Amino acid sequence: MSKNKKFVESITPMSEDFAKWYTDIVKKAELTDYSTVKGCMIIRPYGYAIWENIQKELDAKFKATGHENVYMPLFIPESLLEKEKDHVEGFAPEVAWVTHGGEEKLAERLCVRPTSETLFCEHYSKIIQSYNDLPKLYNQWCSVVRWEKTTRPFLRTTEFLWQEGHTAHATQKDAEEETIKMLNVYADFCENVLAMPVIKGQKTEKEKFAGATSTYTIESLMHDGKALQNGTSHNFGDNFAKAFNIQYTDKNGTLQYVHQTSWGVTTRLIGSIIMVHGDDSGLVLPPKIAPIQVVIVPIAQHKEGVLDKAHELKDRISKVASVKLDDSDKMAGWKFNEYEMKGIPVRLEVGPKDIENNQVVLVRRDTREKLVVSIDELEVKLEELLEDIQKSLFEKAKTLRDEKTYSATTMEEFKEIADTKPGFIKSMWCGETSCEEKIKEIAGTSSRCMPFNQENLSDKCVCCGKDATHLVYWGKAY
Amino acid sequence: MSKNKKFVESITPMSEDFAKWYTDIVKKAELTDYSTVKGCMIIRPYGYAIWENIQKELDAKFKATGHENVYMPLFIPESLLEKEKDHVEGFAPEVAWVTHGGEEKLAERLCVRPTSETLFCEHYSKIIQSYNDLPKLYNQWCSVVRWEKTTRPFLRTTEFLWQEGHTAHATQKDAEEETIKMLNVYADFCENVLAMPVIKGQKTEKEKFAGATSTYTIESLMHDGKALQNGTSHNFGDNFAKAFNIQYTDKNGTLQYVHQTSWGVTTRLIGSIIMVHGDDSGLVLPPKIAPIQVVIVPIAQHKEGVLDKAHELKDRISKVASVKLDDSDKMAGWKFNEYEMKGIPVRLEVGPKDIENNQVVLVRRDTREKLVVSIDELEVKLEELLEDIQKSLFEKAKTLRDEKTYSATTMEEFKEIADTKPGFIKSMWCGETSCEEKIKEIAGTSSRCMPFNQENLSDKCVCCGKDATHLVYWGKAY
Repeated sequence: MSKNKKFVESITPMSEDFAKWYTDIVKKAELTDYSTVKGCMIIRPYGYAIWENIQKELDAKFKATGHENVYMPLFIPESLLEKEKDHVEGFAPEVAWVTHGGEEKLAERLCVRPTSETLFCEHYSKIIQSYNDLPKLYNQWCSVVRWEKTTRPFLRTTEFLWQEGHTAHATQKDAEEETIKMLNVYADFCENVLAMPVIKGQKTEKEKFAGATSTYTIESLMHDGKALQNGTSHNFGDNFAKAFNIQYTDKNGTLQYVHQTSWGVTTRLIGSIIMVHGDDSGLVLPPKIAPIQVVIVPIAQHKEGVLDKAHELKDRISKVASVKLDDSDKMAGWKFNEYEMKGIPVRLEVGPKDIENNQVVLVRRDTREKLVVSIDELEVKLEELLEDIQKSLFEKAKTLRDEKTYSATTMEEFKEIADTKPGFIKSMWCGETSCEEKIKEIAGTSSRCMPFNQENLSDKCVCCGKDATHLVYWGKAY
Repeated sequence: MSKNKKFVESITPMSEDFAKWYTDIVKKAELTDYSTVKGCMIIRPYGYAIWENIQKELDAKFKATGHENVYMPLFIPESLLEKEKDHVEGFAPEVAWVTHGGEEKLAERLCVRPTSETLFCEHYSKIIQSYNDLPKLYNQWCSVVRWEKTTRPFLRTTEFLWQEGHTAHATQKDAEEETIKMLNVYADFCENVLAMPVIKGQKTEKEKFAGATSTYTIESLMHDGKALQNGTSHNFGDNFAKAFNIQYTDKNGTLQYVHQTSWGVTTRLIGSIIMVHGDDSGLVLPPKIAPIQVVIVPIAQHKEGVLDKAHELKDRISKVASVKLDDSDKMAGWKFNEYEMKGIPVRLEVGPKDIENNQVVLVRRDTREKLVVSIDELEVKLEELLEDIQKSLFEKAKTLRDEKTYSATTMEEFKEIADTKPGFIKSMWCGETSCEEKIKEIAGTSSRCMPFNQENLSDKCVCCGKDATHLVYWGKAY
C-alpha cells in the first residue's frame, strides 16, 4: 500500500462552485502550479504537452499559409511604445517596467513586451522598400506580460504564452483578406481540433484592439454560460505605418504606406478546453489535442501473462495513437480516477479473462460507455472510437451552446434573460457606443461580436429603438 | 532590370577582418537585425528557421531520453534569487530589474530570469515528496536576459534563446550519470547534425558554473583559432537542495536531499556554425540543419519548357530534401550569389541544353564542385551528395581543428604558441587556480576544459613545474 498513498481526491462539483471546479481541475490534472511571482503560473508537463500540440497544429497551418517565424526582443523602449497614440494608451497602464540593468539605472525605461506591434513596425520600416518586399508574413511564438490585478490560471495571468502574427501588405484589401484568412485558420482549428464551436464576428468600436481599424474574434460559450474570446485578428489599416513611417515604392514609383494586420491566440485556449469539455470527474480532452489518447490499465497485473499482453498491445496501439501503459503497482481504481482526471479519451482495460476471450475493454472518457472489442480488430476499432469521440465532443458542445443562446427584442426581455439564463443573448443594435454602454449598465453584458452570420430579429435597436445596423452577440465574459 | 536592383554585395574577407566577416554574414545572409534595445537582436526568418531545426532535433533527443518540457515564469523575486549564495553572486551583477508594474512600484524587485535554477528548485521543493517522485527530468525552451556590456549577434547578446534542462535525482551517482548523458547528447548533436567536432571535458573550479559542484563542456575551434563553448552540463550535488530544502523520503522512510543537474545550449550555436563552416562567399550550412537543402535556379527560364521542368524537378526533390525554386526574374548570377551567401548546400541548375540532354547540374556549396547528373538518377544522386557534404564538412572542420591544436611543455613554448599560432594549446596542469590565473596573465588564454580523453605530455605542470594532475585545453575564447 505504500505506493498508493496519494489517492486522487474528488473535485468540487461544477454545479456547486464553477470557479472552484475549474481551479480544482487545473491543479489535480497537474496542468499548472502557482509560483512565487504573483499572477505568473508554472505550466507543468501535462499542461505544456497540450500547449505543444496546439503549437504544432497551428504552426503547420501558419506555414502552409506562407508565414515565417521570427523572434523579436523581449523589451520595448518607452519611446517606441509611445509612437502610436491609441496603442500606448491601451497598454501603458498594464506593463512591467525594467529600470535597472545590473547595477546601473537605465537612461530610458524598457517595458517587458505586452504585445509586439511596435517592434515589428520598427523592423518593417527598415526592411520594406519596394512592392517586391510585400507581403511580409511574420509570426512569433513567445511569452508576453500584462500586469493584471486579478488572475486565474490560463484565463488571465500576468505572463502568458502566445503567438502573434504580424503582417504588412501593399493594399488595404490585401490586409483585410489576411485578417479574415487568419481568423478562419483559428476558427477551423478550434472546431476541428479542439472540438470547440465558435461564433465568428467583428468587435464593435468599443471592444476593438488599441490601434486597430477593425478587430475580428472567435467566441465560445463555457459550461457556466459565460463567453470566452478564443482568438482575435486585427486589421490596422495604415495607422501604424503612418506612426512608424513604413513606406514602399509601388510599381509606378510612388511612395505608399503599407497596410498591416496582427492576430493571436494564447494559453487561454487551454482554459477554454477545460470549461467547454470538462466534467465533475475532471478534464475531458478531444483526441486530436490529447498528449495521451489511450491509457492501458492492466487488471490483476500480477497474474501470469497480463503485463506481457499489455506491453504487446501498447506496441500495437502506438502505431495508430499516442498511448501510455501504467504498469505501476498502484490499484486499478486509483489509475481509473487519475486518468479520468487527466481527461485521457480512452482507457483500455485488459485482464486474465479478457486474454482468455481474446478481447479488451475500451472505456470512453466522455460518455463512460464500455466497449468489448476483439483484439484482432483493436487498431481499427480504436481509430473509429477516437474519431467518434472527437466528433461527439463537438456536437455536444454545439448543442449546449445553441441551447444557451437566446434572443431579445426588448430591454425587459434582455435583462430578464441576462439575470436568469447564463448564455449568449442575440439582439439588434443601432451601432452607437452609448447603447452598448447602456446595455452593459442595465444587464451586465458586453458585446461579444457582430457575427458574420447576420440575422434580422427586428429592425430596431434593442436599447434605443432607432434603426438597427447589426445583430450582436452579448454575454458575460471571461 | 527593376527587380534586380538589390545586388548581393561581397563581404569582407575572413583574412582581412574576421570580426567584420562574421557580422557581414549575419547581416547579408539575413540571419539577424539590430533592434532599438541595445544588445537585443531580432532573429529574422532564415536565422530563426535554423534555430527551429536545432530545436526540433534536440527536443526529440530530450524526449527520447525521458525528459518533459515545462514553462517557468519569466520573473524571479530578488529574495528567491538570493537563496543559493554562489549562484546569486554569479548572476546578480548582470540581471535586468523590474521595479514597476503598471503605475505601481513593486514591494519587491523582480529580475528577468538569467537562468531558472531557483524557480525549478522552488517548484521541486513542492512537488517532490517520495522516492517515487524521482527522477524529475524537466526541460524548458525560453529566452533569458543577461545585461552584457559588449554584444555580438548570436555570440553574446543581452537576450538570447536557449533550452535549460533541470533534473532532480535520488543519488549523486544518478545526477552524475544524467550530467554526462546530456553532455553526450549535445556532443553527438554537434558532431552528427552540425558537422562540428567538439572536445568533451570538465571545467576547472575557476570556470565552473555559479553553484555547481562540477561543470562539463563541449568546446569547438572557430576559423580564427578562438575557442567557443557550445554547451554545458552541470552537476549541482545537493547544493541547491539544501538551500531550497528539496527532500524526499527514501525506501527506508529516511529524509534525503535530492541531487540536481542543469544543462543548456543557446542560439550561440548558430554563431558557431557560421565560424566553423563559413567562407568568404558567406554562410555554409551542413545539410542536416539547413532550412533549404537544395535551391533550383532555372537557366534561361524564359525559354519554353524550362520553368515547367523546374517545377517538375521541385516536386520530385521535395520528396527527399527541402527544396526552394527561385523562378523570380532576377538574373541567374544574382541568384547564385544570394544562395551562396545563405549557405544552401546544393544548387541545381537546369536550362534548355540540360533538358535536351535529360540532365541537370548540381553545384556543391562547400567545394563549388559541379556534377552533371542524369535526371533519371536525380533523387539518388542528390541524397548521396547531401550525405557526402555533411560528412566532408565534419572532416574538414576536424582536420582544421587538429592542425590548430598545439602542445606545450614549458611556459616559453606556451607563450610563443599563444602569441603566434591561434588555436588550442594542450598542456599539463597541477590543478591550482593560481597557475591557471598566471597562465592567463602570461599568455592571455583561459582553460577551456580538462578533456575526458586525457593524454600525458609530461609529468609536470607547464606553469609551476609541480606534479601535474590533468591535461588541459587552453585557448582564447568567445
